[in-house]
Parts: sequence; C-alpha cells; structure tokens
Amino acid sequence: MEHTYPVIMAGGGGTRLWPVSRRDRPKQMIPLIEERTLFQTTVQRLTGLVPFERIMVVTVEEQAKRLMEQSPELASKNYLLEPAPRGTASVVGLAAAVLHRRDPEAVMVILPADHFIRNVDLFHLLVRVATDVAEKGYLVTLGIKPTYPATVYGYIQRGQVLPEKFNYPAYRVLKFKEKPDEKQAKQMLASGDHSWNSGMFIWSAAAILAEIGRQMPKLKAALDKIGAAWGTPAQAAVLQSVWPTLENETIDYGVMEKAENVAVLPASGLEWSDIGNWDSLFDVLVPDEYGNIVVSADHLPMDTNNSLVYGNNDDRLIVTIGVDDVVIVDTGDVLLVCRKDQASKVRLIVEQLKKSDKTNYT
Amino acid sequence: MEHTYPVIMAGGGGTRLWPVSRRDRPKQMIPLIEERTLFQTTVQRLTGLVPFERIMVVTVEEQAKRLMEQSPELASKNYLLEPAPRGTASVVGLAAAVLHRRDPEAVMVILPADHFIRNVDLFHLLVRVATDVAEKGYLVTLGIKPTYPATVYGYIQRGQVLPEKFNYPAYRVLKFKEKPDEKQAKQMLASGDHSWNSGMFIWSAAAILAEIGRQMPKLKAALDKIGAAWGTPAQAAVLQSVWPTLENETIDYGVMEKAENVAVLPASGLEWSDIGNWDSLFDVLVPDEYGNIVVSADHLPMDTNNSLVYGNNDDRLIVTIGVDDVVIVDTGDVLLVCRKDQASKVRLIVEQLKKSDKTNYT
Repeated sequence: MEHTYPVIMAGGGGTRLWPVSRRDRPKQMIPLIEERTLFQTTVQRLTGLVPFERIMVVTVEEQAKRLMEQSPELASKNYLLEPAPRGTASVVGLAAAVLHRRDPEAVMVILPADHFIRNVDLFHLLVRVATDVAEKGYLVTLGIKPTYPATVYGYIQRGQVLPEKFNYPAYRVLKFKEKPDEKQAKQMLASGDHSWNSGMFIWSAAAILAEIGRQMPKLKAALDKIGAAWGTPAQAAVLQSVWPTLENETIDYGVMEKAENVAVLPASGLEWSDIGNWDSLFDVLVPDEYGNIVVSADHLPMDTNNSLVYGNNDDRLIVTIGVDDVVIVDTGDVLLVCRKDQASKVRLIVEQLKKSDKTNYT
Repeated sequence: MEHTYPVIMAGGGGTRLWPVSRRDRPKQMIPLIEERTLFQTTVQRLTGLVPFERIMVVTVEEQAKRLMEQSPELASKNYLLEPAPRGTASVVGLAAAVLHRRDPEAVMVILPADHFIRNVDLFHLLVRVATDVAEKGYLVTLGIKPTYPATVYGYIQRGQVLPEKFNYPAYRVLKFKEKPDEKQAKQMLASGDHSWNSGMFIWSAAAILAEIGRQMPKLKAALDKIGAAWGTPAQAAVLQSVWPTLENETIDYGVMEKAENVAVLPASGLEWSDIGNWDSLFDVLVPDEYGNIVVSADHLPMDTNNSLVYGNNDDRLIVTIGVDDVVIVDTGDVLLVCRKDQASKVRLIVEQLKKSDKTNYT
C-alpha cells in the first residue's frame, strides 16, 4: 500500500439534491446527512488506510478554498486544480500524470467526493485488494449488485475469476457499458452477471496513462507535456495553455468502454449510495417505524408513511396529514414537495429554472 | 324591508383553516381568498339590500376593534359585544332582545361572518323573500342541497309548500336535525327531501324570542332583563351580571331542533360555502386547467393536478412534482402538507398542538 494514492474527485457541480445543493453549494460540500459534509466523510473514510499526505483532491479553483477549510488535515499541495471543467477523462489523466511523475509505481484510488459508504471496513479491504490487482496491471472497478434497471449508472459485465490469487474474488470484465437505455438496463439486470459501476476505480498511474494513450492519444500527448513541466517553473503556464485544448470527455465513455484488462471486485456489501436523488436518502438513513425520515425539521405527522421531511433547522413546524411516499424539502427560499418515485425529475426543474428568470434558485 | 336587520355573527374563533387562521386571527378576519376579508365581504354583500346603519355585528371585545377597522362604514354602535362566549343561542337572543326593543317589528337576518356566497343577486332575492316569510311568523332557514353525507352540517327535512304565496318556493320544515352521524347523514342524503342548514336564519325578533321562551325559559328571562335595561344607564351592569349565568348552548341544538313554524327556502343556487376546511377552497375558487389552485404563492408545478398551493406572499418558490390531490399551506412559521380528502383532520392537529408545548402555533 506504500504506493497507493487516493484521488478524490471533488469538482462536480451537481443539482441532483436540489434545492439543498446549488450551483455554489454542491452536494459534496454540504452537511447533507450528518454533521460532516460528504467530502469530509470521504476524506475521513481513508483514515487508517493511507497517510493524509498521499490523499489528492482534484477540484476547481472556486471550490478549493472551501474544501480546504472543511478538511484542514490535507495540505494545500494535495489539491490539484483543474483550470476549467474538461470532463473526468482529463481530470483522471491530470492526476495520473502528476502522480506518475511523483511516484512511477503510483496506484490511484479514484473516489467521487459525494458518495456514501456505510461499511468502511469492507471499503478498506476492497481498496487493499484492488491495489494488489491494480499492481498486476488491471484497471479495477468496484461493482454494485443492481437492484432495479437503472439508467443512471454504467454497467459492468463480469467474466471469469482472474487467474492470479487475491484475498477477495476478482473477475475479468467482459464489457463496460456506460448508462444504458431502459431496455438494455432490463436485460443486464436479468442477466445476473452485470453490476453497476460505482464510479470508484483503482489502477496504476502507468496503466491508465497507457490506456489513455491507446484510446485518446491527443489527451495522452497533452498529459505528457503537463507531466514533463510538473514541478518546474513552467508548470502553471503549460497547464493553462494545454488544458483548454482538451476534449471534454468522461473516463467512462472515453476510456473504460473500450479498455482492456479491466477487472471488477463485487462491492455490494459496502452499502454504497451515490445519493443521486432524494429517494436515495432512504438507502442511507434509517427510517422510523412508519418508514419516515426526518432531517433538521420539527415534524408533526398524522397518517404519514414512507416519506422524507428535510428541513432547514429553522423554527418552522412541518405538519403532514395523509401523506405517503412523498419527499418534502424546505430550504427557506425553496419548498419542494415531490412524489418519492419522481425524485429524479428534480433535475428537470433545475434545467427549467436555469432557462428562466429564476436562476437565483439554482 | 324597512324592518330588516342583518346580524353578522363574528365572534367565532375557528381553527378550521389552520394554519392561516389562528386563535387571534380567526377565519373571518383574514383576507383568505381575495383582498377583502370574509367579514368585509359579508358586510359588502348587504349593499343595496339594507342601509348600513341597520347592520348589526355581534362579536367579542378582543375582536371588535379589528372588525371596526376592517369595516369603517359601520358605526361602533352597530356592534354588540358579548361579554364572553356563551354559545349562539345567547348571541341570537341578545341581538333579538336589543333589536326588539329598538323596533318591535324587527326581522333579523342571521349571517355567519365567515361564509362565501358567489351569487349575490340570489342572496338578495332570498333575504327579501325570507323577510316576507318571517313576517308571517315563520323561523326561516336557507337550505343547501347536500352533495355528500356530511356530518359537519345540520340537516333540514322539507315538507309541504307553505300555504301563503311568496315570490320563491318556501317549504314547511318537518325536522331540523343538528350534525348527524354518518349513517343518519347517508339516509338523509338518499331521502332527497333534506337539505343542509347553511347557518343563515331569518326571523322576526318577536318570533325567535317567543320560541326561546318556550324552549329555554331561563335564557328568555335573562334576555328580558337585558332588554328592559337596554338604552338605560343600567345597560352595561345588567349585561355583565346576567351574561355569566347563561347556559352555553347553540341556537341549533337549543332552539331549532324542537322549534315550531320553521320554514326553508332552497338556496343551492347561492354557490355557498362555509369554507369549513382547505378542501372547500375548490368550491370557492376557480382551478386552472390542471385543477390546481394557487393563492399568494410562486408555484412551479410538474405533473401536479387538483392541488392547492396556498402561500404567504413571500419570496419562496414552491415546486411540486408528481403531486395529486394535495393541499400545501405555507404561513412562514408553519408548513402544512395534507391529502385533500383528509383536510378536515387539520382540526385534530390543532387540538394536539393545544395540548402540547407548541400552543404558539395555534
């Protein structure tokens, strides 16, 4: 594990938990489900796994300051700043180039900053095993057993167990399929050999750079320039000049779908959630005997079941009568009342607001 | 009509439109569905029917000042102040005693201050005809055709058409039944000859005093004392000494159920509502093409139907997604989310709050 470097991806905007998350207050930066923010939890989850000086955070300039305040245990040199958003392929590539220059044997653990994991022990075990697998040259993914035909996740088709021996089952990946349509999703769910892509990846910097070289040669050339200049007086100038020329692409579409040597570790026991919409708080928090979840609110229920009341910690009383399967989110300036199974439509509301004269609410 | 005296009953507390109506802000005093309050609308509805100096308001001291501010066209001498709440039998009796002393031929038009009537022309016609009927000695009620087996209204069973000729059908009442249980309500709804008691009564002061004398002789004796002292220096002292001795009873239970000579005018065309709960706003206001009603709120709907969004005129944005048949009421300090068909349970919430440490919300 002495070459393992967690890389926390914390640049995302994300309005999926709107109205609590906003343009200038993305999901990973707010104390969403506990006193700590998801970013803080993501950092703390690495305690005991690697020393803090090896934890990298990739983010954008306007978020860096507040992230640094939230996790003072990370030195400012641990932060890699994207000059502008250019997709996760560029972000992963930048981190890979920088880490490869720092440590040619570096193994990167790519971690989204806004996910929830209840089983931290299993997370540690998986990262350790995945590091072993990555050191054999594999690009390692953590796969979640699908529970419904989701179209918001990528899917990973499992093949044979890897020939090498590890302390945990590790499979070759036959196919990596980014967000499918519903028909494909249903087929993959039914097949039994597909898992969801959790968005966590473990690979050596060398292996991912090689794969980028095969599939995105222009990006690879740019990363070589950046890597060569890193730590020299030219570092900032090269980054600033090269970055705007990069194609805006995700690591999933740009690299993983056609990558070779991809492996997957089954990771359902993590009790993982990407908290993609309000509905998923029911996977993360423990409801009361009526199935209700109440966060930061003074709630008086009558005949209310399986509902979420998410308040603003203010003095308001929230009364619900005859309400089932509803999400109520109150941020003071916005009140959202949403049927639970339509929580993903919040995204459409945000798009609508962005096009209106009410961008102040986004 | 020169002996017709409207008597507006404006002393009620009422928490049926909680959280907008409160202990110190009863329903009749708030601009609930238009810029004017229900009390103001009740006064204005009499324009062209009788001169303002003949309109009486019965209320309690703590409400009188604000009612006077709301309707400056009424002189302060038009207000009768109940020393304390003692039920509508006492209130009606007090007004009858006072009016009978002022004008022995007085016909009273008892009008709740918090009802809605869309068809003002028909209201005027009905009051004129009812005055004629009352002058023949009948106690006249206005009956609303029932649309469901309500247990919150009294029921009036219609008999034969009255033998006298009037400009509108007028029937003898066979039975006056205060708030029934559900089984009785269903039977009465099915019978076809029952209507709801609207709570508006028209009768001569002499006739109702005589009926009170038959059924509530103690009240009649007290009213005689009050009437005799009225307009003399002893008026206030007699009222203050007699009032606390009165039985707390409604005019419906105390008098109407066993009264003789009761008549009913069919009054469904009034488009009347007592606005007894939030659901009834759908009878009073005109919904949009999706069946939604939005009052004083900035509402952004998605897949939202047959719902009420009642705001606080503040800067809050209220977003609803996938919401049907729901009432959302936001007063700033309280947020109510209630299934429309359970709106009458708001009363139970208020009772619960009164027993808790949250009486500030009642």
